[in-house]
Amino acid sequence: MAEKKVGICLLGCGTVGAGVVSILREQRAMLRQRTGIDFELRHVVVKGPEDYPANAAELPMSTDAGAAIDNADTDIVVELIGGTAVAGTFVERALRAGKPVVTANKALLATRGVELFKIARGSKTCVAFEASAGGGIPIIDAISRGLAANRIDALLGIVNGTCNFILTKMTQNGWSYAEALKQAQRLGFAEANPAMDVQGRDAAQKLAILAGLAFNCRVTEKDIFVSGIDTLDAMDIQFARDLGYVIKLLAIAERKEGSRLSLRVHPSLVHKDDVLADVSGSFNAISVYSHALGHALWYGRGAGRMPTASAVVADIISVAQGIQGLLFNQMQILMDVVPPVSVQPFEQLESRYYIRLSAKDQPGVLAQVTAILGRHGISVASINQREGGEDRTVPVVITTHKSREGAVQLALKEIDALGTILRPTVCVRIVDQPEEFAAA
Amino acid sequence: MAEKKVGICLLGCGTVGAGVVSILREQRAMLRQRTGIDFELRHVVVKGPEDYPANAAELPMSTDAGAAIDNADTDIVVELIGGTAVAGTFVERALRAGKPVVTANKALLATRGVELFKIARGSKTCVAFEASAGGGIPIIDAISRGLAANRIDALLGIVNGTCNFILTKMTQNGWSYAEALKQAQRLGFAEANPAMDVQGRDAAQKLAILAGLAFNCRVTEKDIFVSGIDTLDAMDIQFARDLGYVIKLLAIAERKEGSRLSLRVHPSLVHKDDVLADVSGSFNAISVYSHALGHALWYGRGAGRMPTASAVVADIISVAQGIQGLLFNQMQILMDVVPPVSVQPFEQLESRYYIRLSAKDQPGVLAQVTAILGRHGISVASINQREGGEDRTVPVVITTHKSREGAVQLALKEIDALGTILRPTVCVRIVDQPEEFAAA
Repeated sequence: MAEKKVGICLLGCGTVGAGVVSILREQRAMLRQRTGIDFELRHVVVKGPEDYPANAAELPMSTDAGAAIDNADTDIVVELIGGTAVAGTFVERALRAGKPVVTANKALLATRGVELFKIARGSKTCVAFEASAGGGIPIIDAISRGLAANRIDALLGIVNGTCNFILTKMTQNGWSYAEALKQAQRLGFAEANPAMDVQGRDAAQKLAILAGLAFNCRVTEKDIFVSGIDTLDAMDIQFARDLGYVIKLLAIAERKEGSRLSLRVHPSLVHKDDVLADVSGSFNAISVYSHALGHALWYGRGAGRMPTASAVVADIISVAQGIQGLLFNQMQILMDVVPPVSVQPFEQLESRYYIRLSAKDQPGVLAQVTAILGRHGISVASINQREGGEDRTVPVVITTHKSREGAVQLALKEIDALGTILRPTVCVRIVDQPEEFAAA
Repeated sequence: MAEKKVGICLLGCGTVGAGVVSILREQRAMLRQRTGIDFELRHVVVKGPEDYPANAAELPMSTDAGAAIDNADTDIVVELIGGTAVAGTFVERALRAGKPVVTANKALLATRGVELFKIARGSKTCVAFEASAGGGIPIIDAISRGLAANRIDALLGIVNGTCNFILTKMTQNGWSYAEALKQAQRLGFAEANPAMDVQGRDAAQKLAILAGLAFNCRVTEKDIFVSGIDTLDAMDIQFARDLGYVIKLLAIAERKEGSRLSLRVHPSLVHKDDVLADVSGSFNAISVYSHALGHALWYGRGAGRMPTASAVVADIISVAQGIQGLLFNQMQILMDVVPPVSVQPFEQLESRYYIRLSAKDQPGVLAQVTAILGRHGISVASINQREGGEDRTVPVVITTHKSREGAVQLALKEIDALGTILRPTVCVRIVDQPEEFAAA
């Protein structure tokens, strides 16, 4: 087959952009040999000369994104600017010009995905976004194609490397949240403003993308119950460990009755024998339970320069070979063509719970608390009065059998109103692996 | 988009075939909705009426494969006959008629893959074979496309569910190999004649497929050093555990100097903290180390009716959507277009070793043995004289630092020639995870 040349226009040359440049330049011969395509980096566009990378002299740098997109020598536009405003404008411009776009920008997909996908269809081109969730793990392709024969019943995993790094440090070193965050920032695993990550919003945006593809519906961030790791106490990590659990920030989508989805991102007690408990540092792991395949899991680096670039370049290849175009047009699973999700209200969730009370050290408190739990139909599985509270409070750790979220929240409100409870009660959900339905 | 109808001709209706029938019939509406294609099962061909499945009355059964393949209403041929002779004849017939073939038949690929792929190219059609390795795990697509931007440095994993089931039972229940095999056969995890599985040949055929795609070269079974699990002693599993290891049958491909590959399938001591140590029962797991993504792992069911059918139907969809055709023709990584592998001779392998001697209970034996090891440049890491030998032999367990396979084999030959060594020495390789080269 005659060799084809494909011109790449790279918008943004920060962390991931530099990784893409590195692969396209250093692995050019390998890519050509594998794909039969010679990928030429024809434009590297940044905002201003102050953003030029160290090796700018060797690169086709410019600062006029519009001209680079419109140039006839640009075949594929790779958007790695981040944010939604500027990035959205350029992605739209490329798509309207009929040029396919590769992006890692989950925030852009969350805010303008539907509209941009429609524009792409109108221009008979496509968008590829493997790097928008799971970093370098090719999970989007796996869900879209590899599992296409399956009715997926549950998808859950660790999809935010920053939170997982912080939780791993808190668990392994006994650090406080603040200490672990500081270390994550020092090592580049957390941004100066870590809110999007530690509040769980980044994980929710990724879950929206993954769940939408897995369950063939349109999921937005606001469909997802979100609770971050920024209010976790080192004490709870210690107590959880004593109970045989590790605390992880899980993103969860589960099919419930009536095809409704339970969608949530929250710190979760995961049993120490669960494979997700062993996912450490900045790694990601995504478990999928489906009717034919049963349980399957994908594990790898969910962020970082080279892992993310790996996914971006895989998308570039897929677009250049015409594969992404076929997928984009034929698979009826993208957010602009699927119906909106039907969400199970969060208060209907059935879960087991870890509850930590900060009680006054006096007789009768436990009787009051257990009476309230009992009145709300919440059955206690274990109860432990612990040492280690501050300000003369006594930590009491309770785990429950399966209970209803709404009942638990009502009970906790009543408990926190007791004069003998000195601080807001901490409640972390215990997540058991879904049952595997697959026959051998 | 106007809905397309695609006619499926299924050759063979055994375990996996029944799973494919189940998905195509029961998930027909879901598949149509997702893909825009209505998959019609138009022929189910078996050898004779005695092979008709229980629900034959509801299916388009026949016994004339040639007629079914040639029928104009057959768009895709799915070969699930197994074996190489009959299956090869029908696959060739389909390809010569320009009809794409989906197959799970690794033995066929091992024996006639190159020839059949060439025929497919000549007829401008394609072969899809996701189910031929890793069962339901979409690992072939991941390596071919998801990791296409990576120089892969190592691929290792558990790819034979039968062996893993047997080893898990031996480890968890302390069973002998014979007991565990019998149980595996009772539960349908092992065949009446388990040789292909327990001797490691099935794993080697899968490794040939995976390594060929990962390293872009043609790998055949004979390029791979193979040693099975059928000679393992329950004692060694116990001793390994005491040292902190689990014994797994690993399939390994590693890039060595001069782009040569170390290719091997053998029982391996895996550290208990290694994620592969936790892969139990009939599950498979494949670790890949690559230059951009770093370490990634795929986990799931590597065999069985529905998991394998999941991969077969994913291939059917991919073929029907034209995706597999594009891939087959553009990715220059298939066995008929890549150069033959350059293999690192097995005796050049550098590994750590677990060695168990059956020594006479008398003074001086250890001095003799360690002298021989020292003369061959093999450095001892630990040495333990154990209880538990039969016939008044004393088991002595030695682990070594990194040593050369050739030297170890020569040393063991000398050791076994000693009058004080009463049975052949057992030697199992200790497999450490490759270093991860990826930058964060």
